[in-house]
Amino acid sequence: MTQNSVRSTVQMTKRTRLGRRKDRARYERDQIYAILDEGLVAYVGFFDGNSSHVLPMAYGRCGDFLVLHGSRLSRLMNSAKEVEGLCVNVSLIDGLIFARSAFHHSVNYRSVSIYGAAQEVVEDAEKIDMLRAVVDHTFSGRWEACRPVSESELFATTVLKLPLDECVAKVRSGPPVDDKEDLEWNIWAGVVPVQTSFGEPVADAYCKKGLAPPSR
Amino acid sequence: MTQNSVRSTVQMTKRTRLGRRKDRARYERDQIYAILDEGLVAYVGFFDGNSSHVLPMAYGRCGDFLVLHGSRLSRLMNSAKEVEGLCVNVSLIDGLIFARSAFHHSVNYRSVSIYGAAQEVVEDAEKIDMLRAVVDHTFSGRWEACRPVSESELFATTVLKLPLDECVAKVRSGPPVDDKEDLEWNIWAGVVPVQTSFGEPVADAYCKKGLAPPSR
Repeated sequence: MTQNSVRSTVQMTKRTRLGRRKDRARYERDQIYAILDEGLVAYVGFFDGNSSHVLPMAYGRCGDFLVLHGSRLSRLMNSAKEVEGLCVNVSLIDGLIFARSAFHHSVNYRSVSIYGAAQEVVEDAEKIDMLRAVVDHTFSGRWEACRPVSESELFATTVLKLPLDECVAKVRSGPPVDDKEDLEWNIWAGVVPVQTSFGEPVADAYCKKGLAPPSR
Repeated sequence: MTQNSVRSTVQMTKRTRLGRRKDRARYERDQIYAILDEGLVAYVGFFDGNSSHVLPMAYGRCGDFLVLHGSRLSRLMNSAKEVEGLCVNVSLIDGLIFARSAFHHSVNYRSVSIYGAAQEVVEDAEKIDMLRAVVDHTFSGRWEACRPVSESELFATTVLKLPLDECVAKVRSGPPVDDKEDLEWNIWAGVVPVQTSFGEPVADAYCKKGLAPPSR
């Protein structure tokens, strides 16, 4: 599901060329895909003709596509399907940068922005592949353990795929960068790491005894 | 900085009325503000006339305003300032919902969407109040510990405030909701909690010995 394209970099476009901090931009597919594969939520932005919208959504990656899904009845899903251009951002926050000046406080992060038009996946076999990518991404390999998907569930779900062509990763890492003349201040400066972690699984009321909880 | 408005709920609009899952909507300011105060990154969406954009940004809350800031030279900051309508989303992911069917997998979350036009803050005293809100939000009370902000830093920074008028919180909590006929399957079902946590502070190379690291 997650095999990479042989093309090792994406092409830079006007929208994915960083105006400032060009040193933070990455166009290598392996770097972009590693961030997407680690993220949990995609922030999907689109303009419906009147308003901008930003929707947090679960997602997956299937080869060179980002995969989104939602109810066939969702008006926002239907808008996202119809608009010409989506912008999707996935960000990982790695650390808080405490500098000596408020001005140089910052955040270490790895972030991907994707621009493009989503295509609806209509053929059942491809739809199942794509939904498996979403479930296995968020719930690490859960698809096979589930009760098989039904025809009516498949019909009730809209699946969109967004080509990973026009995209860029932006990365900030390392310590604070203070002004030289500030280094003598008696102010602690450095990085506080930020992590996302998973707690102890809590079985629901109907869960049969003895079943192993997921390892994630 | 974070005193709440006396108005206890925000007014629902066409954009903040949920089309489906109405039971997940919250319009109480205390619930909306609690989510904003806990979040780390705001996803700022806008349409520049040609494209949608979604930018992950640090933020703060100052009374009934969400506060954003960035370099005066940032083209995206300047676009966000000029467009009529922003949409900003802040989401907290609380748990992964493992159901017996792939279809009923879900995520527990608390999310806020804000619609509106940002106003540029130009007066120095208000600008400082707003920047303090951003720094203290992200770095919990750090502003007072920093080297005081300079005039040139203040000039170099654009501060935008977005009124918390047209906004809605959306909340999903609790266990999976499986179809009744699926409850007999020998499949573990329940919730895996998701947390954001902070690691051990790492001082930078210039940090004087004996200074206490931040408690966050």
